[in-house]
Amino acid sequence: MKSSITGLICPKCHAHYDHRELQGLCRCGSPLLVEYDLISVGKKVNPDKLRHRPATLWRYGELLPVLDESNIVSLGEGFTPLTLLPKITAKYDFGNLLMKDEGVIPTGTFKARGAAVGVSKAKELGVTHVAMPTNGNAGAAWAVYAARAGISAHILMPEDAPRITRNESIAAGAEVYLVQGLISDCGKILARSIPAHGWYDVSTLKEPYRIEGKKTMGYEIVEQLGWQVPDVIAYPTGGGVGIIGIYKALKEMQGLGWIGEKLPRLVAVQASGCAPIVEAYRKKAKESEFFPNSKTIAFGINVPKALGDFLVLEALYETGGCAVAVEDREILESLAELASTEGAFVCPEGAAVLAALKRLRAENWLKADETAVLLNTGAGIKYPDTLQFKLNYCPVDGTI
Amino acid sequence: MKSSITGLICPKCHAHYDHRELQGLCRCGSPLLVEYDLISVGKKVNPDKLRHRPATLWRYGELLPVLDESNIVSLGEGFTPLTLLPKITAKYDFGNLLMKDEGVIPTGTFKARGAAVGVSKAKELGVTHVAMPTNGNAGAAWAVYAARAGISAHILMPEDAPRITRNESIAAGAEVYLVQGLISDCGKILARSIPAHGWYDVSTLKEPYRIEGKKTMGYEIVEQLGWQVPDVIAYPTGGGVGIIGIYKALKEMQGLGWIGEKLPRLVAVQASGCAPIVEAYRKKAKESEFFPNSKTIAFGINVPKALGDFLVLEALYETGGCAVAVEDREILESLAELASTEGAFVCPEGAAVLAALKRLRAENWLKADETAVLLNTGAGIKYPDTLQFKLNYCPVDGTI
Repeated sequence: MKSSITGLICPKCHAHYDHRELQGLCRCGSPLLVEYDLISVGKKVNPDKLRHRPATLWRYGELLPVLDESNIVSLGEGFTPLTLLPKITAKYDFGNLLMKDEGVIPTGTFKARGAAVGVSKAKELGVTHVAMPTNGNAGAAWAVYAARAGISAHILMPEDAPRITRNESIAAGAEVYLVQGLISDCGKILARSIPAHGWYDVSTLKEPYRIEGKKTMGYEIVEQLGWQVPDVIAYPTGGGVGIIGIYKALKEMQGLGWIGEKLPRLVAVQASGCAPIVEAYRKKAKESEFFPNSKTIAFGINVPKALGDFLVLEALYETGGCAVAVEDREILESLAELASTEGAFVCPEGAAVLAALKRLRAENWLKADETAVLLNTGAGIKYPDTLQFKLNYCPVDGTI
Repeated sequence: MKSSITGLICPKCHAHYDHRELQGLCRCGSPLLVEYDLISVGKKVNPDKLRHRPATLWRYGELLPVLDESNIVSLGEGFTPLTLLPKITAKYDFGNLLMKDEGVIPTGTFKARGAAVGVSKAKELGVTHVAMPTNGNAGAAWAVYAARAGISAHILMPEDAPRITRNESIAAGAEVYLVQGLISDCGKILARSIPAHGWYDVSTLKEPYRIEGKKTMGYEIVEQLGWQVPDVIAYPTGGGVGIIGIYKALKEMQGLGWIGEKLPRLVAVQASGCAPIVEAYRKKAKESEFFPNSKTIAFGINVPKALGDFLVLEALYETGGCAVAVEDREILESLAELASTEGAFVCPEGAAVLAALKRLRAENWLKADETAVLLNTGAGIKYPDTLQFKLNYCPVDGTI
């Protein structure tokens, strides 16, 4: 599974960069994307050969950036379940609704994919210290994989980031600082601190390899559907790395001839309390504007201005997709509905996607005969207090 | 993948029972075990054919009790990672130490296996209501799978069972009662309540199919090692269903000719605050005695007297294994060590196994050239407060 990486390219100014050296953003400020020699990939692997490979994201090794397999830092991540949601399909008259369940992965969220590939590549390039601001889950994932790689992690998170992710990061031996502010405040502290230390900045999209990990969700969905693309893939969109990655994977699969011309319509789901991509989409803008005073119970998609916004919007426009904002109330309803009818206890961000898909189906944007994939980015057990419950007690000498 | 189930047998009095009817304990009070026609299994499947099947526990369908595939209730569980622990291997001079990581499964614990198979079989047999006492994780798993099956779940748990599992159960729509007492008190309430309702009692080992789900861990370990058995498998032992299941799987694989005569030595790991199996093992007894005033931070193995104790002890004696008790202090140390060196944030029960294996290696019971498998039964994120941390703060205008 030898990587066919050829280099890095800036999607904005088209400058090229060498993948054998450590890179961050392009000189123009844009994130960088990884390029592969697809002809070489096609000679080494095809869908039939893939069938016999281990059920992790590393099965797509030719299309990942790590050159030497000994640098792979893995906890067995990837090839998460693609689960039918039969009751919700029937109730809301979906053609077919499937959930890609990223709760079933080390650390319990899809952040493990970006961290596994990002940390592996950092190790390959000789990095000894990584640093990042985080709302919680990304920090925990990078902390865990960095520990496994023997890399020191320096993590800044808001004081009110989920306690589980905070403890997970500290347990993994990361140096964690809590900040009485937002993730943007954490980012500013980091920007001031990094020069003195020489740490590698692995903030979202500031290093080019996290996308490569996330894109494997796109490969897996298509492979799990027998190399057919679904009609729609809907994704909870904060920083947008996942949707950028899935779009990149789809284009690569087209280049390889593994799928045909049809692409799934990609849907960016946001909370109405933080919907910069949705606002930009409504205006058909190429970039988003900072969303002031953002607030939502779906902490993971509280990102007022994403560095990769233009890439997210391009993915929506190019696939005939759309962007949808849902209310926190709808998120809570969908969260309870998924757990109690399908046995799927998901994170609030995953529940937001169901809320959005119900709207799109009601508006007939999503047709009655279409297949849609709901991307759940994490396990509900990481958010045990999102739903509030009335408790029943039974006395020790009682009956029920 | 048609099941080759032939019936149920009592391992104590050898009475037979019909698998086409709903069964509980044997008349003699023993749990029942499921039997298969291994000759028929061998005609339908073999290790080579297994390679091409989906990466879930249902790949072993001929050796599972569900007759009609349409009754399978699945969230994509099984085929969890078998992860190398290279740093700990080196530090403690293990031959090879691997972790079977049951955190990477729906609900985040190995209880999902028993629930998936148990609920599927209950559905096949027409059950509409299940009831159980639980320390948390089993209840949550059964609640989730019951929701997916359309079965009502009635769950009793101690008031101080982990809050995450409580909320998970309620979110899944189960009827949950909290009891100011122990799991044994919950069991007594249930015993008084069940007759009036006609619910199916799915308490540990009171229904015969949970073992079948758990046994798939044994198949997977051997398959993931290329159909080689490791020298040792160590398992955190509360109710003991996992170790009973793994032993059953090993015997079935021998019967099928998929492995040779050599069996791994099975090790039951307990906390010194609740070590009935360890005490029985020291006396070479066939059954354990009730362990009074039990107490340990590893909540999942706080079981003072297990219904299947004689089966656990048989598995230890027959494989040349042993039973080891470790202190809570050692559990905490191993928990931090696994997270900070290997990136494996495990549950306290999984950490207990590492503590035990370190002892066994130090005593040379485990030899320097042997391969051992550490069974981690759940994700550390379900136990976010087991480790206590000092928090660092950084002012918003500061640097780190």
